[in-house]
Amino acid sequence: MGKKAVYPGSFDPITNGHIDILERSTRMFDRVVLAILGNPAKDSVFPLAGRLRMARESVGDMAGVTVETFQGLLVDFLVQQKADVIIRGIRAVSDFEYEFQMAMMNRRLNSRIETVYLMPSESYFYLSSHLVHEVASLNGDVTGLVPAGVQKILEGKYGPGKGRK
Amino acid sequence: MGKKAVYPGSFDPITNGHIDILERSTRMFDRVVLAILGNPAKDSVFPLAGRLRMARESVGDMAGVTVETFQGLLVDFLVQQKADVIIRGIRAVSDFEYEFQMAMMNRRLNSRIETVYLMPSESYFYLSSHLVHEVASLNGDVTGLVPAGVQKILEGKYGPGKGRK
Amino acid sequence: MGKKAVYPGSFDPITNGHIDILERSTRMFDRVVLAILGNPAKDSVFPLAGRLRMARESVGDMAGVTVETFQGLLVDFLVQQKADVIIRGIRAVSDFEYEFQMAMMNRRLNSRIETVYLMPSESYFYLSSHLVHEVASLNGDVTGLVPAGVQKILEGKYGPGKGRK
Amino acid sequence: MGKKAVYPGSFDPITNGHIDILERSTRMFDRVVLAILGNPAKDSVFPLAGRLRMARESVGDMAGVTVETFQGLLVDFLVQQKADVIIRGIRAVSDFEYEFQMAMMNRRLNSRIETVYLMPSESYFYLSSHLVHEVASLNGDVTGLVPAGVQKILEGKYGPGKGRK
Amino acid sequence: MGKKAVYPGSFDPITNGHIDILERSTRMFDRVVLAILGNPAKDSVFPLAGRLRMARESVGDMAGVTVETFQGLLVDFLVQQKADVIIRGIRAVSDFEYEFQMAMMNRRLNSRIETVYLMPSESYFYLSSHLVHEVASLNGDVTGLVPAGVQKILEGKYGPGKGRK
Amino acid sequence: MGKKAVYPGSFDPITNGHIDILERSTRMFDRVVLAILGNPAKDSVFPLAGRLRMARESVGDMAGVTVETFQGLLVDFLVQQKADVIIRGIRAVSDFEYEFQMAMMNRRLNSRIETVYLMPSESYFYLSSHLVHEVASLNGDVTGLVPAGVQKILEGKYGPGKGRK
Repeated sequence: MGKKAVYPGSFDPITNGHIDILERSTRMFDRVVLAILGNPAKDSVFPLAGRLRMARESVGDMAGVTVETFQGLLVDFLVQQKADVIIRGIRAVSDFEYEFQMAMMNRRLNSRIETVYLMPSESYFYLSSHLVHEVASLNGDVTGLVPAGVQKILEGKYGPGKGRK
Repeated sequence: MGKKAVYPGSFDPITNGHIDILERSTRMFDRVVLAILGNPAKDSVFPLAGRLRMARESVGDMAGVTVETFQGLLVDFLVQQKADVIIRGIRAVSDFEYEFQMAMMNRRLNSRIETVYLMPSESYFYLSSHLVHEVASLNGDVTGLVPAGVQKILEGKYGPGKGRK
Repeated sequence: MGKKAVYPGSFDPITNGHIDILERSTRMFDRVVLAILGNPAKDSVFPLAGRLRMARESVGDMAGVTVETFQGLLVDFLVQQKADVIIRGIRAVSDFEYEFQMAMMNRRLNSRIETVYLMPSESYFYLSSHLVHEVASLNGDVTGLVPAGVQKILEGKYGPGKGRK
Repeated sequence: MGKKAVYPGSFDPITNGHIDILERSTRMFDRVVLAILGNPAKDSVFPLAGRLRMARESVGDMAGVTVETFQGLLVDFLVQQKADVIIRGIRAVSDFEYEFQMAMMNRRLNSRIETVYLMPSESYFYLSSHLVHEVASLNGDVTGLVPAGVQKILEGKYGPGKGRK
Repeated sequence: MGKKAVYPGSFDPITNGHIDILERSTRMFDRVVLAILGNPAKDSVFPLAGRLRMARESVGDMAGVTVETFQGLLVDFLVQQKADVIIRGIRAVSDFEYEFQMAMMNRRLNSRIETVYLMPSESYFYLSSHLVHEVASLNGDVTGLVPAGVQKILEGKYGPGKGRK
Repeated sequence: MGKKAVYPGSFDPITNGHIDILERSTRMFDRVVLAILGNPAKDSVFPLAGRLRMARESVGDMAGVTVETFQGLLVDFLVQQKADVIIRGIRAVSDFEYEFQMAMMNRRLNSRIETVYLMPSESYFYLSSHLVHEVASLNGDVTGLVPAGVQKILEGKYGPGKGRK
């Protein structure tokens, strides 16, 4: 049994940038849990159940990957999962500072847990769930930014995009 | 007929920093459209009609400048305006990262449209519409930060400022 | 009578990082006023009276330190206090840009007032009142991050943490 | 006669990232001068004549583009060229701060000259002449990073690369 | 046989910050090669043989760790070592941008190799080999910043430090 | 006897940006020592004696200001001067990271010494001694960037500038 890592986030919805990081993670760790944060205090566009379903449909068949939800402290979820590595994607300077803050706090809460950062493909450096919603809500085309199933759900919610130019 | 560019934003309200960027733009492009975003999802302090009126009164007589409002995707507005350049002011590292994200997304949505960045005068590096509201709401003096007409409207809303020291 | 400085903030609640900056300030200035912002427009978790009480209990006996609340423009509070130095802690690049913006605006509002920046101990680089609430609300242990009295109040609000590992 | 802009740099050697910026510039300005800095104080790997030849072979046939060398102050070269816009590519936060410094100084030296910033394709965000030398000198493959003619010259200098994997 | 990773650098000399990252790596990967860059083009204070000896004495007995030197492209060294993960410590925004550039180039040179970033303890955020030399050369005390053996060698080179205050 | 602070640097040569920071410092501290670093390892354009003379002529008559040179560790110079505050100007994100590193190291070397950061006027945000040399060496006009005496010395070295446009 090899190393197990957790890739946490809101995944609201899962994007191709998340999947890129997840694929890179599976080359490094034997098992990776994509862990969807369900804390009630955080506003999300899609409910937890919808985010879970979209993520499972998008990545559920990747070898070594499972998709779970969690509530409470992330470090407690890792203990419960018997995992000791947190995976985070990092794209920008502002990501970096927030991530630094979270990593230091998580270390303080549980010093046995380590955070590693991966960089997504440069094709996804500009991509975020928030931006996907913004584009889709204005009927922009999100083809290639999210898995096909997620695109269909976004089109159901906001109407179809107008295609690539 | 020379090049046409669009300078988009919320302009809530227009500040002297915006006007500085606009003036620099007109030296470079034959026609510049100051385009006020009217998407309902974005909270604004002033309604779209008020923002339009303040902008028109402040810059409407600059040669080559028109003031418009738009809704929907910015790249679609450019196509409709037969413009292919987006102008953005850039002041800070955090601006830069957000702008990078938007530029890459806009390129993806329409690869014929290019974004250029201009730096305002160093006198306006600290200026934002948000900060103008904050100062005016505490009765601080905003002379020199916004056009005279805008200052009058802010004073009507929040009460007069207490003058420069 | 030596120099008097003001250390402004929301202090919602006061953390050990704030106290670290305050202690460093007292080595430099004869009198330091910890000034808690009470502007109604800013959301706070604790009401002004609670923030004042926690701050007074935590630092009220430090030599040369007083704790006050203020409303309105910070520069006006300094004039009223006969102080001419603003103290700010700075931890991160994103802090820096926001602080730059505020310092330039404050200089414009009152050019006799100067802002100085101090760096907290590296142990507090990741610490913020917001993060303390987030951890406490998930029953994480905040021992060492806030004064004992504040910790008790947080535990009363959110339930006790689960201890250091 | 439309707008004329200058795209200055060391171009030591010209890369596909430079050509990307140049192409974007030509959509915006009628004439663009790629201007190679020949100040003796700056160390360069290739001599000025070689850099000029590589740039001319790579971009000399692009419509509206000329390749020149210059010495002395950039703003003086613009005056001599009857151009009033400087074009710069911007990729990273550290670029941004250096560029800000140069833009402010150039404005001070000649307030009629404006600098605009363009972002290269995300494929070239990591690319610099320096990195190209480093990779080529270790016999790494630089196919796709520089024009074919430049690649041949680099291979003549450092030996052939080992091909993409 | 589990995952093998390479932690490359100049290690000129190895510091406690490097050892911190190395220890964190060994919790994640079964075997970690600390790989000292010996390219002649890079200036180093200590010769390669000295850097190798200091690193081996400092970390040679950590389980799963070996210390090697390499020349040429890092990605070629990984192939030769049958490793597919590069480990890098990341402390600051400026690190981040340089690391991003290198990661993208390494991916281009060999897409099977992935880079992961770890954050050192906050106690080592300010630490670099360069700063250690600067302090030691001015007879400042470097106790706690480098392993005891390295400290002895620095004191032999620059004279003893003056002790903690 | 009030607080004494040290403002260290290379001052190669002193610029109006340095003088701006110095003036702000004197409002806060009773005595300020402008301390010119004379470590032989650092390359400087002007020799230490010339930098000292230019600084003394430029600021020697400011109340509470003395100009000194120092060698060795900055913290040792502060102890010798019976000062316990280091003053640094901070202009940019890249400054901030370097300054953070130095502040943490200086704290480690002597925990009684504190560093404070001041922001120069926005007119000097782009100014550095290095850039002054670069402009002067290309016969650009440096009026207003350096004191009149320094300008004369630069013109003696590089030839006169061509005046503001």
